[in-house]
Amino acid sequence: MLVRLVYASRARRDLSPHDLQDIVRRSREHNTVEGITGLLCHTDGVFIQVLEGSREAVNVRYKRIVADERHDQCTLIAYEEIGERRFAGWSMGQVNLHRLNPALLLKYGETQKLDPFRMTGRALTTLFEELVTAGAIECH
Amino acid sequence: MLVRLVYASRARRDLSPHDLQDIVRRSREHNTVEGITGLLCHTDGVFIQVLEGSREAVNVRYKRIVADERHDQCTLIAYEEIGERRFAGWSMGQVNLHRLNPALLLKYGETQKLDPFRMTGRALTTLFEELVTAGAIECH
Amino acid sequence: MLVRLVYASRARRDLSPHDLQDIVRRSREHNTVEGITGLLCHTDGVFIQVLEGSREAVNVRYKRIVADERHDQCTLIAYEEIGERRFAGWSMGQVNLHRLNPALLLKYGETQKLDPFRMTGRALTTLFEELVTAGAIECH
Amino acid sequence: MLVRLVYASRARRDLSPHDLQDIVRRSREHNTVEGITGLLCHTDGVFIQVLEGSREAVNVRYKRIVADERHDQCTLIAYEEIGERRFAGWSMGQVNLHRLNPALLLKYGETQKLDPFRMTGRALTTLFEELVTAGAIECH
Amino acid sequence: MLVRLVYASRARRDLSPHDLQDIVRRSREHNTVEGITGLLCHTDGVFIQVLEGSREAVNVRYKRIVADERHDQCTLIAYEEIGERRFAGWSMGQVNLHRLNPALLLKYGETQKLDPFRMTGRALTTLFEELVTAGAIECH
Amino acid sequence: MLVRLVYASRARRDLSPHDLQDIVRRSREHNTVEGITGLLCHTDGVFIQVLEGSREAVNVRYKRIVADERHDQCTLIAYEEIGERRFAGWSMGQVNLHRLNPALLLKYGETQKLDPFRMTGRALTTLFEELVTAGAIECH
Amino acid sequence: MLVRLVYASRARRDLSPHDLQDIVRRSREHNTVEGITGLLCHTDGVFIQVLEGSREAVNVRYKRIVADERHDQCTLIAYEEIGERRFAGWSMGQVNLHRLNPALLLKYGETQKLDPFRMTGRALTTLFEELVTAGAIECH
Amino acid sequence: MLVRLVYASRARRDLSPHDLQDIVRRSREHNTVEGITGLLCHTDGVFIQVLEGSREAVNVRYKRIVADERHDQCTLIAYEEIGERRFAGWSMGQVNLHRLNPALLLKYGETQKLDPFRMTGRALTTLFEELVTAGAIECH
Amino acid sequence: MLVRLVYASRARRDLSPHDLQDIVRRSREHNTVEGITGLLCHTDGVFIQVLEGSREAVNVRYKRIVADERHDQCTLIAYEEIGERRFAGWSMGQVNLHRLNPALLLKYGETQKLDPFRMTGRALTTLFEELVTAGAIECH
Amino acid sequence: MLVRLVYASRARRDLSPHDLQDIVRRSREHNTVEGITGLLCHTDGVFIQVLEGSREAVNVRYKRIVADERHDQCTLIAYEEIGERRFAGWSMGQVNLHRLNPALLLKYGETQKLDPFRMTGRALTTLFEELVTAGAIECH
Ligand SMILES: Cc1cc2nc3c(=O)[nH]c(=O)nc-3n(C[C@H](O)[C@H](O)[C@H](O)COP(=O)(O)O)c2cc1C
Ligand SMILES: Cc1cc2nc3c(=O)[nH]c(=O)nc-3n(C[C@H](O)[C@H](O)[C@H](O)COP(=O)(O)O)c2cc1C
Ligand SMILES: Cc1cc2nc3c(=O)[nH]c(=O)nc-3n(C[C@H](O)[C@H](O)[C@H](O)COP(=O)(O)O)c2cc1C
Ligand SMILES: Cc1cc2nc3c(=O)[nH]c(=O)nc-3n(C[C@H](O)[C@H](O)[C@H](O)COP(=O)(O)O)c2cc1C
Ligand SMILES: Cc1cc2nc3c(=O)[nH]c(=O)nc-3n(C[C@H](O)[C@H](O)[C@H](O)COP(=O)(O)O)c2cc1C
Ligand SMILES: Cc1cc2nc3c(=O)[nH]c(=O)nc-3n(C[C@H](O)[C@H](O)[C@H](O)COP(=O)(O)O)c2cc1C
Ligand SMILES: Cc1cc2nc3c(=O)[nH]c(=O)nc-3n(C[C@H](O)[C@H](O)[C@H](O)COP(=O)(O)O)c2cc1C
Ligand SMILES: Cc1cc2nc3c(=O)[nH]c(=O)nc-3n(C[C@H](O)[C@H](O)[C@H](O)COP(=O)(O)O)c2cc1C
Ligand SMILES: Cc1cc2nc3c(=O)[nH]c(=O)nc-3n(C[C@H](O)[C@H](O)[C@H](O)COP(=O)(O)O)c2cc1C
Ligand SMILES: Cc1cc2nc3c(=O)[nH]c(=O)nc-3n(C[C@H](O)[C@H](O)[C@H](O)COP(=O)(O)O)c2cc1C
Repeated sequence: MLVRLVYASRARRDLSPHDLQDIVRRSREHNTVEGITGLLCHTDGVFIQVLEGSREAVNVRYKRIVADERHDQCTLIAYEEIGERRFAGWSMGQVNLHRLNPALLLKYGETQKLDPFRMTGRALTTLFEELVTAGAIECH
Repeated sequence: MLVRLVYASRARRDLSPHDLQDIVRRSREHNTVEGITGLLCHTDGVFIQVLEGSREAVNVRYKRIVADERHDQCTLIAYEEIGERRFAGWSMGQVNLHRLNPALLLKYGETQKLDPFRMTGRALTTLFEELVTAGAIECH
Repeated sequence: MLVRLVYASRARRDLSPHDLQDIVRRSREHNTVEGITGLLCHTDGVFIQVLEGSREAVNVRYKRIVADERHDQCTLIAYEEIGERRFAGWSMGQVNLHRLNPALLLKYGETQKLDPFRMTGRALTTLFEELVTAGAIECH
Repeated sequence: MLVRLVYASRARRDLSPHDLQDIVRRSREHNTVEGITGLLCHTDGVFIQVLEGSREAVNVRYKRIVADERHDQCTLIAYEEIGERRFAGWSMGQVNLHRLNPALLLKYGETQKLDPFRMTGRALTTLFEELVTAGAIECH
Repeated sequence: MLVRLVYASRARRDLSPHDLQDIVRRSREHNTVEGITGLLCHTDGVFIQVLEGSREAVNVRYKRIVADERHDQCTLIAYEEIGERRFAGWSMGQVNLHRLNPALLLKYGETQKLDPFRMTGRALTTLFEELVTAGAIECH
Repeated sequence: MLVRLVYASRARRDLSPHDLQDIVRRSREHNTVEGITGLLCHTDGVFIQVLEGSREAVNVRYKRIVADERHDQCTLIAYEEIGERRFAGWSMGQVNLHRLNPALLLKYGETQKLDPFRMTGRALTTLFEELVTAGAIECH
Repeated sequence: MLVRLVYASRARRDLSPHDLQDIVRRSREHNTVEGITGLLCHTDGVFIQVLEGSREAVNVRYKRIVADERHDQCTLIAYEEIGERRFAGWSMGQVNLHRLNPALLLKYGETQKLDPFRMTGRALTTLFEELVTAGAIECH
Repeated sequence: MLVRLVYASRARRDLSPHDLQDIVRRSREHNTVEGITGLLCHTDGVFIQVLEGSREAVNVRYKRIVADERHDQCTLIAYEEIGERRFAGWSMGQVNLHRLNPALLLKYGETQKLDPFRMTGRALTTLFEELVTAGAIECH
Repeated sequence: MLVRLVYASRARRDLSPHDLQDIVRRSREHNTVEGITGLLCHTDGVFIQVLEGSREAVNVRYKRIVADERHDQCTLIAYEEIGERRFAGWSMGQVNLHRLNPALLLKYGETQKLDPFRMTGRALTTLFEELVTAGAIECH
Repeated sequence: MLVRLVYASRARRDLSPHDLQDIVRRSREHNTVEGITGLLCHTDGVFIQVLEGSREAVNVRYKRIVADERHDQCTLIAYEEIGERRFAGWSMGQVNLHRLNPALLLKYGETQKLDPFRMTGRALTTLFEELVTAGAIECH
């Protein structure tokens, strides 16, 4: 059974670009092995992540992520059994908000700052789909 | 939570182009700060305005606007919780009816004169969407 | 409130092209003033007319038309409250059936002769929409 | 083909109960012969009438009613082709509003006074169905 | 055109039962005249009110209410054009939350305290319908 | 914003009835304070729990529960934003499967043993609703 | 494959009750053998019949009936592939219109006389279902 | 009222191309006069024909066709009241199966041989629509 | 994953009541162990069986049944993934057609003899549901 | 009646390309005669096959395939009555997974290895449709 899980969290302290690359690199290694795909977005001290995969794999991984000391306030935004993945092409794509038209964030949020803690699961999911379309996912 | 509010009102006296530009300029300053977007239309002594933003910001601003002495008979035409904004690109776009094919007004109204007080929320909202498509929104 | 009214009637006697042009010309004068739009079709001694406008204006005009001695057997074919007009571009467009592929009449009617008295409101309305698409409306 | 027609009009002058009974009596005679059924409601100088029957019979009768000098401002409120009649039991039932709970009028109208000229076809039709359920139709 | 407006606000200071009765009494006088119906709920320093009536009457009244110094933070929760009223029987019914099973508030809210500022229009409207069913509306 | 979360887990070792009562008692104390409601089911070394409440409260609590050493393999079965709670009456109701007709488990599962790890979120949720209807929830 | 066929026809000459009974008796004998069920209605020189059964049996029988000299103008009113029969209990039930409230015929027809040639398949089918409910089917 | 009738039959004996052309030619003469349109398909001793037109005309013609000695086992496949014709352009188009990709027959049938007696009305109708699209209708 | 499988077959030779009871008894033993539930119907040399359970268990069992020499022509009538079982109460209920009103078979079939080889999956499934309601399932 | 059957199985031992070509060649011979169409996919010791055709032909063939010693664990994945075939162009097309973007398998499965035994009928069917679109079907 496939599921998609979206959560948000707050970085405990300001992460250096290096820290972030470290998280992404390790994620890609693990996720490829476990059949997990998805996206990670980091902005203004907030993380938003999408994880797709088998129900078991996603839950095991999410438990580890929640316990990671580098962030807290992990909050499930959306979780559903899915017929097909939406982000099958990324073991862990990285969202680059700098490339975006700022109106895109305004379209789904109350202000120009992306604040997942004030958004519904549906709005956040739709925003992420638009990010893919808008070419804002990086894989270096 | 995002909402969209549409209201109509009547100008107390004939406004000069200067007065109108003043309203629009001030609106843009405030709205940008408060995360409000929308459109303003002024024709034949009638105002129609669309305001999108967080429920709190829109209500605070609407209360001030209702109390503004430059117009009265403020009447809510439509108000709804929305998943996404429709006019995210304008902190306050201005509708220029002179550029329009007059049949467009006739399409949604009883006469060629735009009279929001005799229109449903649905008709007015659809008309405004067509105005965007027809390129009738100015941002100078 | 906007409504659309469609009726059919029979000309009392064979109308000359001149008589018909007179009706159309006068209609255009009145309708422009009253915010009425629509189409008129005359063929084989039968009239079919579409009138769109405010409920009040359309009813006032329809009462006069019913009393007009140049035709009788006025029969309502369709009448509905509408969100938007379909024929907003014509104060009174004229349908020219001579330009049509005869299969178009057969598509909606029992024979190649257009007989609104044997058609439902839905069929007649759909036919008129196809006439617009097929470019069979004249405005000279 | 069966149709249902609803219209409203204004009595030219205050009608005596006798006048009204005369209209109703004559209506019943004609309607029984022509296969027409329906309801008539008279209140505060306003008439509302529902007419059901074959398209031809209803239109012939409506033309005569519109021309009747005892009322004017005849305004079509609703007209539709129907699969079955709703008021098949009354050749012309009379609505007695005095028997009603006043909240019923308020439920569909802007004030406690029944004003069909400010109501949609749908609201008026629903109100009339509730009148039947509420036992407000008389047949003496 | 009928509309229903729901808003919430905060009482400026603790209102005495007497103050509240005064608001309700005056509301009933005005509303009966203006064809307005609805409910008022006061709890823990918060007001929630439903106003139904013609678009014009409701907007005129809402403008006065917003300006009333006895409360502030007036926030529209829901506003829609309606085919029929839901609270036609009350010129201004009073909601008595003390009579309720506390689980009813928990059913629609995050805690047992009714907090309209954290609720959607839909949830609040559904709660109010259940209040009517549960007999929690008083009219003394 | 209200959410409902359903998860399953496996008890690390056989729990005594006393242990279980301890979990339930502590849960009720916390949950009442945090506005959380739901059900807990323990059978054959498996836990299934439903948690309803504000998104924040449920996530904070779920993080603690996942870290609890008395069980592991915590697996999200369902999670959704809800308009209203389904189990508003229980700060933590206890499901007593011994009272059930065994055909009820068979209706939703592959065998007579309840195995949430082989069930969809929908099937499990429907089963829990039937448990409520069947009177299988205890509150001692 | 099961089908239901409804047709109407006109009796060539006035049939005696004896003639009619003869048709019904013979129909029952044949239909029981062929797995055909249905209803027959005779009124004012018009026949209406419903035939249900396998596609082959119904078509073979219909061909013979059409050729029967006792009636003509056989006109198909409705024909459809069905998942289940509606008149499975009658090898050929007889409709007795004398037992009916005359308003029932008026409900679906233009006048009180049943005229299938002016009715749609849907209206006639609905009428026949109401006849069953109203107990108007005889089987002597 | 417009109807569409589809039937299948078996040729009594092998028809020569000449016989077939004779049927088609006569059909075109009659059908043009009677306002009937449609298609005829002859293959492997089986006929399939679509007839569209007024209910009366189609039934009169179908009675004659059923009685025609050149074929038998006439079986109705589909019959419905229609809002518009699908084959308005052919007084009697001829289907030429030789031009087809054989996979098209397989798509709707159990084997590559077209056998209408084993097909539902829906499958046959869809196949015929594809034949039109595929250009398999001839009119010489 | 739960599935429901319905098949029909023909008994190789006339089975004695004893043979049948033997099949049913053995089925109940196996099915209870494997979590399979369902119904078996034997009439006029035809078997119809419903099997519900995990996808794996049902397929393993069906393979054995197909290979059973006591019947042949095993034909799948319906097979679907299900959210819940319909016949959870019977490890293998026996359908007793002798208790039925014969019109029930006629309702879904072409003749009074139950012939699953000429029925759709939908018709057969609906018939079986009516059999349960009609109390035609035995469990001795 | 047309059906589509999808099953999965496990090869008993590693098949040589020659063995596989033998199965495919024989299948094409038989299937063309029996009016069966479909696809066959072999990967990592697993078979997935789609069979379309008349209900009888498909069941007769499936019985033989199930009994074939070259594979076992035959498990029905999907089976439905269909209005039209989806794979009418292949008497037995061969799926070549080597040509695919690996993300396509990940899109519908838990890992990059195609495992039909952990997939729903719907997911597998959708995957096969994408394979056709992606040009992954070979016919040499
Ligand atoms: C915001 C965030 C997102 C993460 N996402 C993933 C991920 O998708 N996959 C992953 O394996 N680890 C991810 N991690 C790292 C895990 O928390 C944890 O460090 C990692 O799973 C450790 O695995 P290991 O100890 O087995 O190497 C993430 C960490 C953070 C802070
Ligand atoms: C028709 C009309 C529309 C207005 N729209 C806005 C607006 O969108 N945003 C805004 O800040 N002020 C708007 N205003 C001006 C406000 O009424 C008010 O003057 C302004 O909010 C004053 O803000 P300040 O006193 O904080 O500068 C509008 C005024 C009118 C007459
Ligand atoms: C078939 C037909 C259609 C007509 N349509 C219109 C119309 O659309 N508008 C109009 O003003 N008059 C129309 N007329 C003319 C009216 O019947 C009537 O002559 C006219 O409204 C007179 O208006 P007046 O006396 O105010 O000039 C129509 C007449 C006929 C016979
Ligand atoms: C409000 C109103 C409603 C009427 N309704 C009917 C009616 O339903 N049937 C009818 O025959 N006449 C009705 N009449 C009367 C007609 O206007 C007209 O007097 C009548 O049809 C005259 O018919 P006669 O001249 O053929 O007798 C109504 C009149 C009024 C003012
Ligand atoms: C929470 C609240 C609700 C009110 N509701 C109504 C109301 O429904 N109708 C009304 O007339 N006044 C209502 N009022 C009072 C109005 O704010 C205002 O005092 C009143 O309309 C004054 O009307 P007057 O000056 O014309 O007497 C309400 C006031 C408050 C604080
Ligand atoms: C299966 C299971 C379910 C639990 N459910 C809850 C619960 O609903 N609420 C709660 O407060 N604690 C629950 N707990 C206990 C928590 O894991 C944890 O012990 C508790 O939240 C500790 O809170 P405290 O340290 O703040 O007292 C549960 C534990 C288990 C094993
Ligand atoms: C209105 C009408 C309805 C009939 N319905 C049936 C019928 O349902 N079944 C039937 O067998 N014959 C029916 N018949 C009689 C047939 O037309 C025909 O006489 C009969 O099928 C002769 O069958 P036989 O010659 O094989 O005895 C009907 C005749 C008429 C005029
Ligand atoms: C398969 C088939 C289809 C036919 N289709 C038609 C047709 O569409 N129109 C038509 O007039 N005759 C059609 N006919 C011929 C009629 O059966 C009959 O011969 C014709 O209507 C005779 O008409 P007439 O005697 O009035 O000339 C068809 C005959 C066959 C065998
Ligand atoms: C019509 C029919 C239905 C059967 N249904 C079942 C069944 O539901 N369960 C079952 O175990 N065996 C059923 N059987 C018997 C099996 O075909 C087979 O004999 C049985 O599974 C043998 O199992 P065993 O050899 O493991 O005892 C059925 C046989 C027939 C002929
Ligand atoms: C995975 C698999 C798929 C098969 N598919 C087909 C098929 O589609 N058609 C077919 O005729 N045989 C197929 N076969 C072969 C049959 O199992 C069997 O060998 C064949 O039907 C024998 O037919 P015959 O003995 O009549 O020649 C398949 C075999 C396997 C192992």
